Amino acid sequence: MNLSQRLAQISPGGSNGREVFHRARALIASGVAVADLTIGEHDIRTDPAILAAMDASARGGHTGYSSVAGIPALRAEIAGRIATRTGVATTPENIVVTAGGQAALFAAMFAIGAPGDACAFIDPYYVTYPGTIRSAGLVPRPIVTEARDGFLPRPEDLLAGTAGARGLLVNTPNNPTGAVYPDATLAGVADAARAHDLWLISDEVYDTQVWTDRHTSLRALPDMAAHTLVVGSLSKSHAMTGSRLGWICGPEEAVAHIVNLFVHLTYGIPGFVQDAGLFALQQGAPFEERIAAPFARRRALVDAALARTSAVIGLPTQGAMYAMLDVRATGLSGLAFAERLLEAERIAVMPGASFGAAASGHVRVAMTIDDAALADALARLVRFAEAEAAAARTTAMS
Amino acid sequence: MNLSQRLAQISPGGSNGREVFHRARALIASGVAVADLTIGEHDIRTDPAILAAMDASARGGHTGYSSVAGIPALRAEIAGRIATRTGVATTPENIVVTAGGQAALFAAMFAIGAPGDACAFIDPYYVTYPGTIRSAGLVPRPIVTEARDGFLPRPEDLLAGTAGARGLLVNTPNNPTGAVYPDATLAGVADAARAHDLWLISDEVYDTQVWTDRHTSLRALPDMAAHTLVVGSLSKSHAMTGSRLGWICGPEEAVAHIVNLFVHLTYGIPGFVQDAGLFALQQGAPFEERIAAPFARRRALVDAALARTSAVIGLPTQGAMYAMLDVRATGLSGLAFAERLLEAERIAVMPGASFGAAASGHVRVAMTIDDAALADALARLVRFAEAEAAAARTTAMS
Repeated sequence: MNLSQRLAQISPGGSNGREVFHRARALIASGVAVADLTIGEHDIRTDPAILAAMDASARGGHTGYSSVAGIPALRAEIAGRIATRTGVATTPENIVVTAGGQAALFAAMFAIGAPGDACAFIDPYYVTYPGTIRSAGLVPRPIVTEARDGFLPRPEDLLAGTAGARGLLVNTPNNPTGAVYPDATLAGVADAARAHDLWLISDEVYDTQVWTDRHTSLRALPDMAAHTLVVGSLSKSHAMTGSRLGWICGPEEAVAHIVNLFVHLTYGIPGFVQDAGLFALQQGAPFEERIAAPFARRRALVDAALARTSAVIGLPTQGAMYAMLDVRATGLSGLAFAERLLEAERIAVMPGASFGAAASGHVRVAMTIDDAALADALARLVRFAEAEAAAARTTAMS
Repeated sequence: MNLSQRLAQISPGGSNGREVFHRARALIASGVAVADLTIGEHDIRTDPAILAAMDASARGGHTGYSSVAGIPALRAEIAGRIATRTGVATTPENIVVTAGGQAALFAAMFAIGAPGDACAFIDPYYVTYPGTIRSAGLVPRPIVTEARDGFLPRPEDLLAGTAGARGLLVNTPNNPTGAVYPDATLAGVADAARAHDLWLISDEVYDTQVWTDRHTSLRALPDMAAHTLVVGSLSKSHAMTGSRLGWICGPEEAVAHIVNLFVHLTYGIPGFVQDAGLFALQQGAPFEERIAAPFARRRALVDAALARTSAVIGLPTQGAMYAMLDVRATGLSGLAFAERLLEAERIAVMPGASFGAAASGHVRVAMTIDDAALADALARLVRFAEAEAAAARTTAMS
């Protein structure tokens, strides 16, 4: 029986560098010690106190159908957190609780456009973006950035790249680049939204992991609240990746329609998971700072490891759990570098091209192993890169 | 900012009888005792042993990203259960774990057709069906059945109603009618699938609640395995409605594509919920029989209550948690009957028209309160209907 063509079109094929990831997992499974810097997942598990809250909720009877929009207390807590962090007035009616940030992204794409409409996004990008835009029937339109700009989109490229589009998907703090968009870039985003009457889809799931500057929500930019659907999640901020608990924050009318969409997509998410999320948020900023602290420390380790080499150039690590490393001095593509690094040093990193053509010649390091192991892996990565760069220079001279 | 038109089109409006439900909830919230027979949810909570398994899994560390397809042990358990119950060879690669039956329905609709393709379904129907078909971009095409046929679709209507369609959505045991499709109806479904090369979407979430005949999975009909996506769930069979744990069982190629769709829809479901579901399924048939037993008892209460009245005619209660009652002898629409019954007797039932035009003149009773309360409510419902029917006869003669 034939399936709908659109299923195959979600992921039209071609390498995305997952080979390195799968090879690393196979090595680990066979007992080989590998420094795994591939995946954006904390090296801690969800806090036992959060799990105790979940268990208490479930045993207390919160095991039946829950409100599809989210339980009122959780919607209120999320709204309050957003109001506090951004200064933008936010009510529970601005919030719909979703099955993680991914379901929020899908629903946001579904909401803004009709099949065939374009949605722009910034390349490099989180790996599911193009497929999520296509899943919702929209056409992904990359705005390609350059390493020399720190992978920040230029205002003129934002304006040109969104002409005729319905939406623009932005992610700051950024996965995979570790950039936090400065005011000038954010102004360019808002200018494009005003010029082309765009919806902004603002993926802010790393909003607690900011090292250099204050995070600015796109919804807080002048006149942007009515244009913006913010995607949030407890995955990164509260080490709850597996709980699949996120939200959309947007205009009330949009949220009401998106709730109805979720009636038909998931029929809500477990009440006991929502109670766990409510407990987690009620722990406030100190808890969030504790979860983010390891990445702040490890970012300094990355900067230190790269300080005295020209074989690997790190982008400024400003936010999120990642460092994007320029390895072009080795003469290798990011994919070849990652493959050889895994074989030679048993260090697994993601080829930059996994996140779009803009990041070829780079590799992404997830700072998700303990500090000592990360420092050791980085030192070996630098030595490896220096040897490759020296070999490349020799070859070039011969 | 304008939203996509398709958002508003998911639920194009018009009454769906939810007013009665909301009025009942408001009465209950204000302290009024109401016999609530509206919602298909058990009067027990999820078993504590299942919740203990969930807690053990979470505390054991299953709180990170899980396999999007479902953890291997759960896929294998579901496949084994289906093979045992249906006799059809089933492997883990035939299974994708979903966020409840609703997410399975959405993904199945997405998989079978392109925007604009038609999917037929049987009227009366579970309330989310038309909206789910529209959410996936398809056009819902009702095949209207008649009360005098027990709301079973006639083979000739199945054949005519699916011409040019991509799929046919079938639900047996049926919500809202309580019917279990007999062999002749199932043969008609398969004939239509063969004639028009249809995908069958087979919603079998009530497969443990069968009172009169053995449940036959559509996938077990001759040559139908390659045509069929079965929607399953632990909601009804294991009293786990709030856990949002379901699956699709279908051909391997379809399942592989649907897994990729879920990468972009939900990025999987919580590992600890999957472990809870695995534990629940491992309890085997005795557990499922214990969860289903109250509905078997209460079905007998319904039949007894209606045995000596002509004011309310019950459809044969063959499966699921519902009884569909014909109240046309009262001269009232199902909606008017439900509204008056709520005001006069504080008994809340769903108007049949909530489930499609075919069931107007009927009300649906969910057998989801304890036996004594249900027997009392049914006795009062019958007395109310007899008084209304007598009044209608008097009016007709005057």
